[in-house]
Amino acid sequence: MIIDCHGHYTTAPPQHDAWRKSQLAAFREGSLPPGYPAISDDEIRESIEQNQLRLLRERGADMTIFSPRASAMAHHEGDERVSIEWPRACNDLIARVVGLFPETFIGVCQLPQSPGAELKASVAELERCVQMGFVGCNLNPDPSGGRWTSPPLTDRYWYPVFEKMTELDVPAMVHVSASCNPVFHATGAHYINADTTAFMQLIQGDLFADFPGLRLVIPHGGGAVPYHWGRYRGLADMLHKPPLSEHVMNNVFFDTCVYHQPGIDLLFRVIDAGNVLFGSEMVGAVRGIDPETGHYFDDTKRYVDAAGLTDADRARVYSGNARRVYPRLDRALRAQGR
Amino acid sequence: MIIDCHGHYTTAPPQHDAWRKSQLAAFREGSLPPGYPAISDDEIRESIEQNQLRLLRERGADMTIFSPRASAMAHHEGDERVSIEWPRACNDLIARVVGLFPETFIGVCQLPQSPGAELKASVAELERCVQMGFVGCNLNPDPSGGRWTSPPLTDRYWYPVFEKMTELDVPAMVHVSASCNPVFHATGAHYINADTTAFMQLIQGDLFADFPGLRLVIPHGGGAVPYHWGRYRGLADMLHKPPLSEHVMNNVFFDTCVYHQPGIDLLFRVIDAGNVLFGSEMVGAVRGIDPETGHYFDDTKRYVDAAGLTDADRARVYSGNARRVYPRLDRALRAQGR
Repeated sequence: MIIDCHGHYTTAPPQHDAWRKSQLAAFREGSLPPGYPAISDDEIRESIEQNQLRLLRERGADMTIFSPRASAMAHHEGDERVSIEWPRACNDLIARVVGLFPETFIGVCQLPQSPGAELKASVAELERCVQMGFVGCNLNPDPSGGRWTSPPLTDRYWYPVFEKMTELDVPAMVHVSASCNPVFHATGAHYINADTTAFMQLIQGDLFADFPGLRLVIPHGGGAVPYHWGRYRGLADMLHKPPLSEHVMNNVFFDTCVYHQPGIDLLFRVIDAGNVLFGSEMVGAVRGIDPETGHYFDDTKRYVDAAGLTDADRARVYSGNARRVYPRLDRALRAQGR
Repeated sequence: MIIDCHGHYTTAPPQHDAWRKSQLAAFREGSLPPGYPAISDDEIRESIEQNQLRLLRERGADMTIFSPRASAMAHHEGDERVSIEWPRACNDLIARVVGLFPETFIGVCQLPQSPGAELKASVAELERCVQMGFVGCNLNPDPSGGRWTSPPLTDRYWYPVFEKMTELDVPAMVHVSASCNPVFHATGAHYINADTTAFMQLIQGDLFADFPGLRLVIPHGGGAVPYHWGRYRGLADMLHKPPLSEHVMNNVFFDTCVYHQPGIDLLFRVIDAGNVLFGSEMVGAVRGIDPETGHYFDDTKRYVDAAGLTDADRARVYSGNARRVYPRLDRALRAQGR
């Protein structure tokens, strides 16, 4: 079984994004947003069948852990009220996708974060979504969108979400959204920087002493971390922390959203296969075909298949780790007899 | 011959840093800084012989392209006047090191950047330093120290420095300094993020159409870039840019400050050896001994030696590329009969 841990609903019907535009326009004008538009099951079905589902089948994966479009979370837009309405609309749409394709998609929710706001609304939305069958959340370490005004992830500011995650036994993918800072290209700099930044914060702090069961997935192959694994091992040592395997790697996982064979090979050379979850971020950041291979850049299954893993490790990367990191996914699969 | 392109004077005599402290204290009090302290040649000699020179000899390299301590540039401290005095003191000290060890060190200067300030002072300091025999500069893409308030490197804001670099035929290493933003650990996040960010800016823009001869060294092995080389090739394609080999890699170079063998192997697997300059950042970011190898993390020569390069490529990485990217270094070496 092959589970893609990192898929966003980047192909939602146009009414959804149009409503977001109206919502932000209403906010700017100081008026109320219009009601959320009607979207039919057929429209949702079509948006999935022609995109994610088609590609899953073509590439030979079985299911996707599915969340709202990351770049559209844009927690920096509007105010806290705006940032409460929008995730609710996005998450409800994910729930409908999961309802239509219960064997292929399972939900991960976007949180109603807002720069400077406390995390009460995020805790409530996480609880609401898990009650709807979601198995995790996306946590944005920089809701300011490239201004980086929030404290590090190890700060107590974040603890309400970590407490609720622990209580519900769900992990978070640490995932930023769009960048409103012109120095940071979203998918080319901000995403990768955030992954690197989050990992270093976890080295500096001692978060997992307070939350020994907390699980965080750092996407995009862990940002720069595996490439600079020696640097991080050395910095942990300089900071008088235990080895990374004890200090963070019981709780931190990387996906395989690295879009070439040498990168995937490096990932598995330095990171234990027990810490890697198959992911493609499809349909996502990089949509083209690699002229060097003739295949889609984000068809990461090809790279994993060619990475020379043992059968046991490949099985862990393709599904075993995901079922362990997302126990509610495992339960849902068992209920389906899978 | 082995040239380390990336060394900082992290071991300067204590009077130097003490003066910096007085300078910043005077700035806060609105008074004038004290005069720069006396530092004897012997003190400088000792600070070098016991550190950089000893390690160069132990590790078997011949010389270092040497610049002031990067984390102490701290362009975000004080105001523009403060940020003009400090680089002058730092660069003068580098000139003294080079004067004492002319066969082992050659200078690269720190620029008097200041957040929001125009680059006139940087142009003047670059000119002054090149007249003293310096062969390049360190350009900080984020003088705000982790607030990222400057425009991208492709913005015309930066052109005065690029014009002067072109006129003088000197390259810049794109190197940030300390982070005053608690989310970013300096050497574990801010440095690596800046490398990644700068490279993506260069993909997005078209800087080398305006400056075809400009040369930029992106340190720390290019940040996350080689690990995510497929992502960057794909993003260039999505942005309708030429292949990276044409669009940026005639002008961009990476060093080998990657502190483990798998990282260095990846670097050479994806980046042409003509674009890689040997560097260690020694004595620098990561000072310990790797328990897995028994050798210093930053003894990058070991990794390069073991990377399986051809003799010709290894010669390019160890010295040929540096002499090409820093033509004034080449001239200085020729004058020494090397």
